[in-house]
Amino acid sequence: MPISLGELATSFGCELIGDPDTIVSYLAALQNAESGSLTFLSGASFLKYLSATQAAAVILRAQDVDQCPVAALICDDPYATYARMAAVICPPPAFTPGVHASAVVASTATVAANAHLAANVVVGEGTTIGENTYVGPGSVIGPDCSIGNDCRLIANVTLVKQVVIGARGIFHPGVVIGADGFGNASTAEGWVKVPQIGGVRIGNDVEIGANSTIDCGSIDDTVIGDGVRIDNLCMVGHNVHLGAHTAMAATAAIAGSAKIGERCIFAGASGTVGHIEVCDDVTVAALSFLSKDVTEPGNYAASFPAVAAKSWRKQLARFRRLGQLNERVKKLEK
Amino acid sequence: MPISLGELATSFGCELIGDPDTIVSYLAALQNAESGSLTFLSGASFLKYLSATQAAAVILRAQDVDQCPVAALICDDPYATYARMAAVICPPPAFTPGVHASAVVASTATVAANAHLAANVVVGEGTTIGENTYVGPGSVIGPDCSIGNDCRLIANVTLVKQVVIGARGIFHPGVVIGADGFGNASTAEGWVKVPQIGGVRIGNDVEIGANSTIDCGSIDDTVIGDGVRIDNLCMVGHNVHLGAHTAMAATAAIAGSAKIGERCIFAGASGTVGHIEVCDDVTVAALSFLSKDVTEPGNYAASFPAVAAKSWRKQLARFRRLGQLNERVKKLEK
Amino acid sequence: MPISLGELATSFGCELIGDPDTIVSYLAALQNAESGSLTFLSGASFLKYLSATQAAAVILRAQDVDQCPVAALICDDPYATYARMAAVICPPPAFTPGVHASAVVASTATVAANAHLAANVVVGEGTTIGENTYVGPGSVIGPDCSIGNDCRLIANVTLVKQVVIGARGIFHPGVVIGADGFGNASTAEGWVKVPQIGGVRIGNDVEIGANSTIDCGSIDDTVIGDGVRIDNLCMVGHNVHLGAHTAMAATAAIAGSAKIGERCIFAGASGTVGHIEVCDDVTVAALSFLSKDVTEPGNYAASFPAVAAKSWRKQLARFRRLGQLNERVKKLEK
Repeated sequence: MPISLGELATSFGCELIGDPDTIVSYLAALQNAESGSLTFLSGASFLKYLSATQAAAVILRAQDVDQCPVAALICDDPYATYARMAAVICPPPAFTPGVHASAVVASTATVAANAHLAANVVVGEGTTIGENTYVGPGSVIGPDCSIGNDCRLIANVTLVKQVVIGARGIFHPGVVIGADGFGNASTAEGWVKVPQIGGVRIGNDVEIGANSTIDCGSIDDTVIGDGVRIDNLCMVGHNVHLGAHTAMAATAAIAGSAKIGERCIFAGASGTVGHIEVCDDVTVAALSFLSKDVTEPGNYAASFPAVAAKSWRKQLARFRRLGQLNERVKKLEK
Repeated sequence: MPISLGELATSFGCELIGDPDTIVSYLAALQNAESGSLTFLSGASFLKYLSATQAAAVILRAQDVDQCPVAALICDDPYATYARMAAVICPPPAFTPGVHASAVVASTATVAANAHLAANVVVGEGTTIGENTYVGPGSVIGPDCSIGNDCRLIANVTLVKQVVIGARGIFHPGVVIGADGFGNASTAEGWVKVPQIGGVRIGNDVEIGANSTIDCGSIDDTVIGDGVRIDNLCMVGHNVHLGAHTAMAATAAIAGSAKIGERCIFAGASGTVGHIEVCDDVTVAALSFLSKDVTEPGNYAASFPAVAAKSWRKQLARFRRLGQLNERVKKLEK
Repeated sequence: MPISLGELATSFGCELIGDPDTIVSYLAALQNAESGSLTFLSGASFLKYLSATQAAAVILRAQDVDQCPVAALICDDPYATYARMAAVICPPPAFTPGVHASAVVASTATVAANAHLAANVVVGEGTTIGENTYVGPGSVIGPDCSIGNDCRLIANVTLVKQVVIGARGIFHPGVVIGADGFGNASTAEGWVKVPQIGGVRIGNDVEIGANSTIDCGSIDDTVIGDGVRIDNLCMVGHNVHLGAHTAMAATAAIAGSAKIGERCIFAGASGTVGHIEVCDDVTVAALSFLSKDVTEPGNYAASFPAVAAKSWRKQLARFRRLGQLNERVKKLEK
């Protein structure tokens, strides 16, 4: 949606250096922006592109404005401001309210008049779809679910049963919420399945990436707090609690019954074992996992970045000889 | 389904301390059980909740019965007994036999009269669906498959081709079985795809978690034994054999052509390289992987639990200087 | 498709030792091949099965022909030659052109007359489906996509929007391409979503495994080069570039904005952090990840194969005492 720099500056509290009537219609990266586009300067590594940008306007910090050859929208946090302005210029695709002829909706389900159920959507008994919510093609919403207002389920999303979602959630294709947790009792005759009878409660403003899975609780519910962000191919086990604004990057996994605080960040392929408690404001590095309760906020890590394989083989051999090295030092000490 | 304590005790071989006519209708956790509910005491860490429980009855070991303020069902393995009783009180949802009007079934497919094919299910040529089996919405069952009796494919499950499944299997949403394995021959012009012509054979009582994938064999079949349990987002490569009652927790991965024994346990994010053999009764710790044949049952591990990132950076520096440390000790030894 | 050894030898440039009129109709592994089948001898570990094979013919190197009891097709690379011959004997399943009655195709979409849209396929506005392309059941192709000629989307594949695919691509079930990247600006009030407005451009001859995800670009496109091979449950973040003929084995993950060269190989569960550049011909070992730019081709690694858990606990203790060991050596040096 085209909008003037003046409107943007006013709406988002920026100082504008330039013509308030200039219209921006597109978003672009600083280094290949074309006329009519809005861009931003965030990290210092992009500063080199500023002087040659062809954008109509750049969102930047006051300290960088002197080097800006075009209109500038000055603010303290250009990336967050860009995010907010971008949502105005490129809003999510509009949809027409209504239920596609091929959708199959149970007789006891309630669908808001201005919601949209796309082709081949299936909605189970006792389920509610909120105002202005979009359920994309092929999505299966099981029984006894409730999806709040202004949500978007992009396509092929599956909510199994008893999944309650707040407002403004975004669920990408392949997401599965409310499938049975991994509950198995070991017996002499093999595994006995433990029925998984809980549901999933998801707060407001939650976004979950493609093909991620969030299991239902074994007895009580799995709980995802407000503003949580989960990337693709992540796993949240049964009974987990994720505190508000916690984020999980791709392929991160939180094992069953772990209680995670607010504003935690799990980097790619990180995670926790089950049944632990993690306090607020904990960040876990890529490929690292927490194995016990964490009571101190801060950064945690335990991964080895890759090196040349030849060096690694030597290093691995040295590691394996640590016991011998220790003995040699002991001998010297005697 | 409400049931009396007397019936439960008789059916599952427990000693009952309490009124056999008391009815339980729900399942609950020990610490927040309400009247009319059945609960269990398994780990010692929950013993503190026993004296205050509001449950109608608790499944527990004889040693704990003195502290139980309500009716007790005494047995040796409360968790397994809970699992079995829970399946009676909260059975899987019932379904009505029949094929939904929107399902598309090939003319040469055979569907048992008391099976259920839900909305938008697709069944390919030559495929058989067994007695009392439920195929949930959006599932695609390709050609030449056979699904046994009493199976449940929850929703959006895909069986590609030549997938043979025994009785009582449970397949959660997003599961993909029988997709092509990763077979590529390296040539000067790039990768040449190796056709994957095998199928997948799955035993009885197998459960596979949401969004897990099991590839077809490259020539012969991939084989999953009876009673295998696979959690979410797991990967089983082409030609793999998983022995009976083996379990894989979330995001575990077994690479192509590995032969895994019976009763093995792969913890979260663990796995094996391809083309190895692993004997029965091997347990692999979280984030650890087997790189060669294993002939001794037991526990295997190789992961580093996360620590404060500052400590880790120091530790990593020490690790990298292991060669220097070794040289210094050598010098001292001379 | 049955074919004579003479035709195979001529078409694929092999020397034939045996009757050119012999017909092969099946493919088989060397050790359990039956009459009428074609097989191959690739690794030395299979040589022991050669003398007893029941195959009609074996593809092998000249050096092994003396031990071959049946017809031989001699070439330099038996595995690649097998792959090419197998594609002739067992071609992908044929399909009839046309759009299934249950498919929902937007009025502005263009579908080639000899393409096939299977049951419950949904095609969005402005999307083009190429000649002889098969779109399997339940697939959702969003707006403004273009799928080239001779592609196969097996089933339940989702292309979200602005996904452009070249010729001869193969996309397995559960693949999600073009979902929003993980773009979130951190603010005092929590995460602000950064709109993801880019698309995905995929070259020719690309194959992507079941349940893998490739995110759209945040502003510009995510780019996958010609001949790339991606296994199951892999993750490719927003703005990533994968060079031609690069391969990712199962559960590998490339984080956002990484630029990966040509002919790289990522083993299972390996990956990179975001925003790095990796040159051509880099191979990363299983469970290892690149944390910074790589400018030298070659092999990289950083993983610890699992050992007996008891040994590992000791080894881990020694590792944690590295600082103390260092102090002890220092003391000795004084």
